[in-house]
Amino acid sequence: MRIAKLVVVGVGLIGGSCALALKRAGAVGEVVGVGRTRPNLDAALARLVIDRAYTLDDPWARETSDADIVLVATPVAQFPSLFASLAGAIGPATVVTDAGSTKQDVIAAARGVFAGALPRFVPGHPVAGTEHTGAAAAFASLFEGRNVVLTPLRETAREATERVAMLWQTCGARVTTLDPTRHDAVFAAVSHLPHVLAFALVAELAARPDAAAYFDHAASGFRDFTRIAAGSPEMWRDIAFANRDALLAEIDRYRDALDRARALVAAGDRAGLATLFREASIARRAWEARRTQPVVEDKG
Amino acid sequence: MRIAKLVVVGVGLIGGSCALALKRAGAVGEVVGVGRTRPNLDAALARLVIDRAYTLDDPWARETSDADIVLVATPVAQFPSLFASLAGAIGPATVVTDAGSTKQDVIAAARGVFAGALPRFVPGHPVAGTEHTGAAAAFASLFEGRNVVLTPLRETAREATERVAMLWQTCGARVTTLDPTRHDAVFAAVSHLPHVLAFALVAELAARPDAAAYFDHAASGFRDFTRIAAGSPEMWRDIAFANRDALLAEIDRYRDALDRARALVAAGDRAGLATLFREASIARRAWEARRTQPVVEDKG
Repeated sequence: MRIAKLVVVGVGLIGGSCALALKRAGAVGEVVGVGRTRPNLDAALARLVIDRAYTLDDPWARETSDADIVLVATPVAQFPSLFASLAGAIGPATVVTDAGSTKQDVIAAARGVFAGALPRFVPGHPVAGTEHTGAAAAFASLFEGRNVVLTPLRETAREATERVAMLWQTCGARVTTLDPTRHDAVFAAVSHLPHVLAFALVAELAARPDAAAYFDHAASGFRDFTRIAAGSPEMWRDIAFANRDALLAEIDRYRDALDRARALVAAGDRAGLATLFREASIARRAWEARRTQPVVEDKG
Repeated sequence: MRIAKLVVVGVGLIGGSCALALKRAGAVGEVVGVGRTRPNLDAALARLVIDRAYTLDDPWARETSDADIVLVATPVAQFPSLFASLAGAIGPATVVTDAGSTKQDVIAAARGVFAGALPRFVPGHPVAGTEHTGAAAAFASLFEGRNVVLTPLRETAREATERVAMLWQTCGARVTTLDPTRHDAVFAAVSHLPHVLAFALVAELAARPDAAAYFDHAASGFRDFTRIAAGSPEMWRDIAFANRDALLAEIDRYRDALDRARALVAAGDRAGLATLFREASIARRAWEARRTQPVVEDKG
């Protein structure tokens, strides 16, 4: 794969790491970075993540007219205004993709503005990250062995999807496709719900007058269970609202499951609780064993 | 500290590691091991974890009459019958302690049988473990830098508590004391509840007809959040029932917290949800920063 010009809007961990991975692979000519703040762009320039930089106050959109690919990797809340800026500027051969954690809301924003360019928009979700943010945290191997889910529309051109798939494969990722509604339902269950559960647990403990006594005795189980509660409050707030319906459905489903577990404890149903725990333990161990094996690509 | 004779009932990871740590420190003369199965005792003998071995079918209890300390480190469900066997046999200078993850139930079992020996019973909870079990998994450094919580009774002799504290300090642990009710409330919140929550989540997902589609997209957040759901179903079932009242109170409290989070999402309260997430994130990061030493596996 050879990308003559890539525009990365949002040169953070995801956008920056993608640029670095493509550069390391010799797969990209020029990378233009667009961002909110000058210091982060300067850091990206200094680390050779990008070759040229624009802030959002600069006339950055015209750089996309001759770009092969535009990757929008800012927080999702900024997508609508960015898409509006992009819509009139992108060239006839430019493919636009994004890195948002939710897809139906991103697609709705794109539909509102992209018009004739919609066939060249490929919604995407690189399932990768660390607890660090910004261009300084970017590294070329972030996507190696990670999943990237693309959720092409009916209108999306096959070549556009293939170009974006190739981009992520060049970064070392496994690319799969999903229907956007299905994507949001799946990630509500395996990602957004666990985050809400972990945030709720830690916030509840922290609000107790004697919180320190609890935290002082927390050990490794607590550490791992609550690690995601250290995540960005704003990012996860945005994701929760971007995927609200699916998340509410998962919260309700989970509350029912918790009520069933509670009922087993309350009733003294030793066999029932052991069965519940055993089903979880077997499934969790099987998942752990599977994830070390290569996953077959799902062409949807 | 010098222990002429130590009897370890339950020569598994905890009991075996304690024996190894005391031996390494030159703090113990003879270690007598008592266990359910011969192969595990043979492994303990071969690794020099213990010096002599009895199965529970042997007349092991009389070995405790001239022991300085008896450490009961079997699964908690076996405690009542073991305590009954011990009660008539322990010597006038023998101190008994245990390694159970819950304390009020252990204390109730002890009160029922120890009578005049009760002042020499020191309930304890070494907060350490790994995912491995048995004498083969024991190692001398398991307790280094870990917490051991002792929950002495009103009747417990000060010298008995001091002797057990010294034992664990010799193993490298940090020893604190808590009221037994308080102990069970704290560990219900920071350990037992998270386990139930993780088991419930994974069991619910695994029961879906299309479970594989969910598990296939689960990433590192899910991995850490659910790691404890791979734990021993029987052990956690026993802990849940041993600490039932405190656990039910924590489940109810958590369900209320989850309902509040759900209400914020449902109401579209962006500021409210961000505040909740921020309180959790700040508290979780502060906890992580306070930990000056790595935390080991939380066995219960």
